[in-house]
This record gives sequence, structure tokens and C-alpha cells, in this order.
Amino acid sequence: MQTIVTKSNAIHFNETCYISLNDYLDTNNFSMIMVLVDENTRALCLPRFHEHIKIKKPLEIIEIQGGESYKTIETCNSLWRRFSKLGADRKSLLINLGGGVITDLGGFVASTFKRGIEYINIPTTLLSMVDASVGGKTGVDLDNLKNQIGVINSGEMVLIDTSYLDTLPKEQIRSGMAEMLKHGLIRDEDYWQRMKEYIEKGPSSQIDNLIRDSVIIKDEIVTKDPFERNIRKTLNFGHTLGHAIESYFLENKDKKDLLHGEAIAIGMIMECYLSHVLLDFPLEKLNNIVQLFSKVYTPITIQSRDHEHILNLLKHDKKNEYGNVNFVLLNDIGDYKIDCKVDNELIIKAFQFYDECFESA
Amino acid sequence: MQTIVTKSNAIHFNETCYISLNDYLDTNNFSMIMVLVDENTRALCLPRFHEHIKIKKPLEIIEIQGGESYKTIETCNSLWRRFSKLGADRKSLLINLGGGVITDLGGFVASTFKRGIEYINIPTTLLSMVDASVGGKTGVDLDNLKNQIGVINSGEMVLIDTSYLDTLPKEQIRSGMAEMLKHGLIRDEDYWQRMKEYIEKGPSSQIDNLIRDSVIIKDEIVTKDPFERNIRKTLNFGHTLGHAIESYFLENKDKKDLLHGEAIAIGMIMECYLSHVLLDFPLEKLNNIVQLFSKVYTPITIQSRDHEHILNLLKHDKKNEYGNVNFVLLNDIGDYKIDCKVDNELIIKAFQFYDECFESA
Repeated sequence: MQTIVTKSNAIHFNETCYISLNDYLDTNNFSMIMVLVDENTRALCLPRFHEHIKIKKPLEIIEIQGGESYKTIETCNSLWRRFSKLGADRKSLLINLGGGVITDLGGFVASTFKRGIEYINIPTTLLSMVDASVGGKTGVDLDNLKNQIGVINSGEMVLIDTSYLDTLPKEQIRSGMAEMLKHGLIRDEDYWQRMKEYIEKGPSSQIDNLIRDSVIIKDEIVTKDPFERNIRKTLNFGHTLGHAIESYFLENKDKKDLLHGEAIAIGMIMECYLSHVLLDFPLEKLNNIVQLFSKVYTPITIQSRDHEHILNLLKHDKKNEYGNVNFVLLNDIGDYKIDCKVDNELIIKAFQFYDECFESA
Repeated sequence: MQTIVTKSNAIHFNETCYISLNDYLDTNNFSMIMVLVDENTRALCLPRFHEHIKIKKPLEIIEIQGGESYKTIETCNSLWRRFSKLGADRKSLLINLGGGVITDLGGFVASTFKRGIEYINIPTTLLSMVDASVGGKTGVDLDNLKNQIGVINSGEMVLIDTSYLDTLPKEQIRSGMAEMLKHGLIRDEDYWQRMKEYIEKGPSSQIDNLIRDSVIIKDEIVTKDPFERNIRKTLNFGHTLGHAIESYFLENKDKKDLLHGEAIAIGMIMECYLSHVLLDFPLEKLNNIVQLFSKVYTPITIQSRDHEHILNLLKHDKKNEYGNVNFVLLNDIGDYKIDCKVDNELIIKAFQFYDECFESA
């Protein structure tokens, strides 16, 4: 599958991944190669990685605990100290082998260690393949606020080896599909239709092409607007409410942690509803979207007493400017409007809409 | 005094500082303006700043404790949380009013909060005017290793208002002069001579021009090589040993903390000695340098039992590559050689040379 050359790096797929990586390691004489994994990717992905990498130097395998709750500055601190102890220098390389937590956090740690060492991402979840792999957003959470601390810095290279998807539980695949569905909704009705077919007909080998096209959509957007002044904001579709819901569930011991995709699926349904009310997004398409999402995602109960807390969390959304919450909404599939203001009353209605969708289902 | 327009920002001096700042604040509608100070700059510099700034919005004054020992990720963490609580967003501005700790740490916190907000540096010490103001190096220490964590990101604007120097104790002026002397040694014998005259004849108004020319020297170097692949390494002259000595004194409760300039003055004397032994740096100039430095800096006792510990700290120098310590040495004043390897035995001799210089003085 053909490599995508972005403005800042190259994204290699499947059969070309390890050829490119081995070439790169051959031509760059790194003083040390560190591989960041979590307990899952160490057990399930590292063996395949080892099989395909040809290098004489021993690799330094560094394991951190997996999961969003470890995506913190404290974990960064322990990694910076670990790098220091190992004697890593500016000619050292970090390879991040894992899902979004590993690639986001690893990217940030590499970008800031001695003011920046080179790094490579090997996303092993569908979510990180279609989302975290492009655009150079690195970062960690601040308390329960997602990705509040970070920098924009693309790694040297991204390797998308879809074999790693075989190691994933089904809910992780569903989580990743939310970002792919989003790419269709904000940018490309054809792609949306192809995703719809894929979901309706059930898994086939076609997912590799859908992944690649998802990466192409995201790359096009990010290249046009690397610093999120305009079109890149569309990638936040579903995320304004989705992130707040995700944060709220994460900080609430009584609630189960949501997967990122689950949370933004709720966000997308609610923001499609807002789009319908404010921008006349077609009702029929709204219904189709709800129907398709309900095939993939289990409905989540959000109670009335949760609403206020979630609205409070919206204040910390990174897209906010001048104290206003900025939504990305849709006039139609593939036709967006950025910087939309929505009052709290209408957001409450969107919660009710979401609730009713699944009540009647 | 004329503004210096660098590749990434503008450096304004004295009378043009506040005109430029007020213009900038007028044309950019920031959602919030935060001013980072420490207890000293709050008391001594903030009143002057308030006097000259014309803005209707209230400023958010944020105070942290001054001093190198607070230049840590923990301080960053408390600032990120503070920004969050205040409701800062991507359209917020941070103004760093203080010495190198404030500008380095504030620059890092701004560069990483929500993946980067704009910031302005107003250095209030001589050291930060001539050093931290140019080149965009931001960062904090990791345990006792200096500036291990950071990014390269120039602020929007630097304002050098030499009136703030009147608030400084004399030893702080001496500390800053070390970087100015360094700029002469690595790049410009004329400038070195002018600094020599300034020191020998005693303070006069000439320092403003010397500051500006020091900034020009540094900017030229940084523009040629922003990522420190070659010529920018010369700015580390005196810092390889200087940083290690500074770190050692900082982590040792029995030793007094050295000012940065005091430490790199020792580093420069030792590295001039290494230059003499390895590159035939002229003996007469070596003696002149020692003589001039002894007029400014009090000799520091470094005992034989300290040597090994300091050599150990050299391993963490950010310039190291492939496990080697890389020195910048001089063939002559203004004529440098980067990536010099020096064995430990010779470094011990350099310690002895430093010791003997002041024994006989």
C-alpha cells in the first residue's frame, strides 16, 4: 500500500513499514534506540516488531502502565528520568509502539527531552492509526482535562501495520471507527457511505483501504491548517461534547470509563442534533446517523444531574476563545461551519435528544 | 535604540519597548493577559511595568517563587493548573517578567499549555537580557540536571528595558557579564576588547550598547543554526564544565549555590586552558582572560574530591552524542572548534589550573 508523504513526515503502510524503518535506522546512526510499550503492546505487539526489525544494537524496551489514567505529567517525569539514567542523548531515538496514550505521551516526552529527540510512531490500535498518527498533536492530560499539556511536533515517521489490529478486542475497533466515521461526516459523503456499507455488511479486508483513506482525509486537513486556525477545527467535530463527557466519566468513580470513540460517538450524535436545530442539517441524515451509530455503540446513560457537571467541563475545551465554547457544526455531511456558539439550554436539549434516541430504540 | 528583528520575533530596547508592546496588545485582542513574576520582580519591576502598559483589561499577576531550585516540572504543573483555573484559553497571552528562571520556565509553560499560547519575555536581569532573550530555548531542570526538559520556541516579542538593571544586586550584574564575555571570546575579539575596557574603566552608560551588541552576536549565531547542529554549539563554550559545576554545587548542601555566570566563568577559564593544551590557544591571551575574570569573579574552591562527581555530571550534558562529552574549544579568540573530545585526565588538569590561577593571585 502506497506511502503517504505528509508535509512533515512519511506514513508507511503494511508491507513497506519495516523496509522503511530498517532503511532509516541504517542511514541514521542513533546512539540509542528506545521502544516505549505498555503491558499489552509488550506482550502482543513487541514480538512482531522484533521479528521485522533488523538492527545489531540492542533495543532499550521501556514499559509504562497502559490506560488514559497514566497519561500524565507524572508518567512523563518518570520517563525523562529513565531516559537520563539510560544515558540517552540528542542522537537517541524513541519508537512509540502502542495506542493513543503511548503515541501522544511518547511524542511529548521525546519532543521535550533535551529540547527534542527524534521519534517514530507505530500505532497499534485503530484509533491511533486513523487519528494520532497524523498531525503531530502530542500531549498528556492535566488532572482530568484531556490533552491540556502538549506540543505540535510530528515524529520522523509513522508505520501503520494493520496486523496489530488482530491483537485488539472488538470494542477497541469500534472506538477507532468513531474517528473514521467523523472523517466522513466532516469532509466526504462518499467516504461516509463506504463506512456505512462496511458496518452494515460486516468486516472484510476492505478496512485497510478505509484506514488509508481516513489518514489521507486527516492529512489534507492538517496540511492546510497545521495550527488549527480554521479548517483543522473540523477535526474537533463531536469532540467538544465528547471530550467533556469522557472527562466526566473518567473522574467519576461511579461511572464506567468510556473509550474515546464511545464518548465522541455520543458527542457526534449530539452535535449533529445541534447542527439540525441551528443549521438545518437534514433530519433524514440525522436519523440515518443515529441509526448507524446505534449499530456500533451501546447506548450510555447520562442522567439529568450529570448535565451541569459536563457543561462545566466544556469551559476547559482547548478550542474555546474569549470564554466562549466553540462548536464545529455541519450544514450537511461534508459541509461544516466552525466557531458556532451554542447556549446551554440547547445543549441540554441535545442531551435529551440523545437520551430519547435510545429510549425508543 | 533600534529594534532587532530576528528570524522568529522582534527584540525591542528601552524607549521602544512599551510603544511596541502597547501596539501589540492593541492589535491582538487577547482573551486574558497573565504576567508571571517572582517575589523580587513583583516588588521591584512590576510597578514600572504597570506604569508603562496601557490596557483596559485587568492583568492577571501570577507569582512563583524565584530561584533555580523552583525551575522544575512541579512549578510548571502548578502554573498549568493555575492557568486552567483562571480559564486561560489559546487566545490568552503570558508575559514573563523576570530573570532566566521566569523566562525559561514561563516560555516552556506557555509553549505547552493547550499545545501553545503566545508569550512575551521581559528579561529583568542582565543574564536573561543577553542570553535567555534570544534563541527560543525554554525549559526546566530535571532533578539537578539543568534544562533537561524543554522546547525551542521563541516568544512573540522580547523587551529589553535596561532600567530594570537598577533593581539588581551587583553580583547579578557580574553573573550576566559572563555571557557577554563569552560572546566576545567565541565570536568577536573587538567586542571582547570593549568588554575588557568596560570592566577596567568601571561602569558607564556604555553597557546599553554592549547589551545590544551581545544580543546581535547571539542572534546571528542562532539564526544560522537554530537547532544546534554546528555553530550554535559555540554558545555552550564554558557551559560544558560550567553547567556540571553549577549542578554539583546546587545538589550539594555543603556548597554555596553558584550564580550561573559564576559557574560558567569557571567553565570558561578551564575550557580556555583546554584550548591552550589541545589547540594552541595563545598562552598570553589565556593569562589575560584569567586576569580579567579575576577582576569580576571571586575564586571558588573546588576540592579534589569534587572532581569525580563533576565528571560524572558531564555525562548528562545535552551536547553529548554517542556517549561522548563534546566540548567547544577555541583556536583563538573568535575562532572556535566544536565537537572536541577531552579525556578525564586533562579535565582534572584543568581543575588544577583553575585552582592554581587563584592560589597565586
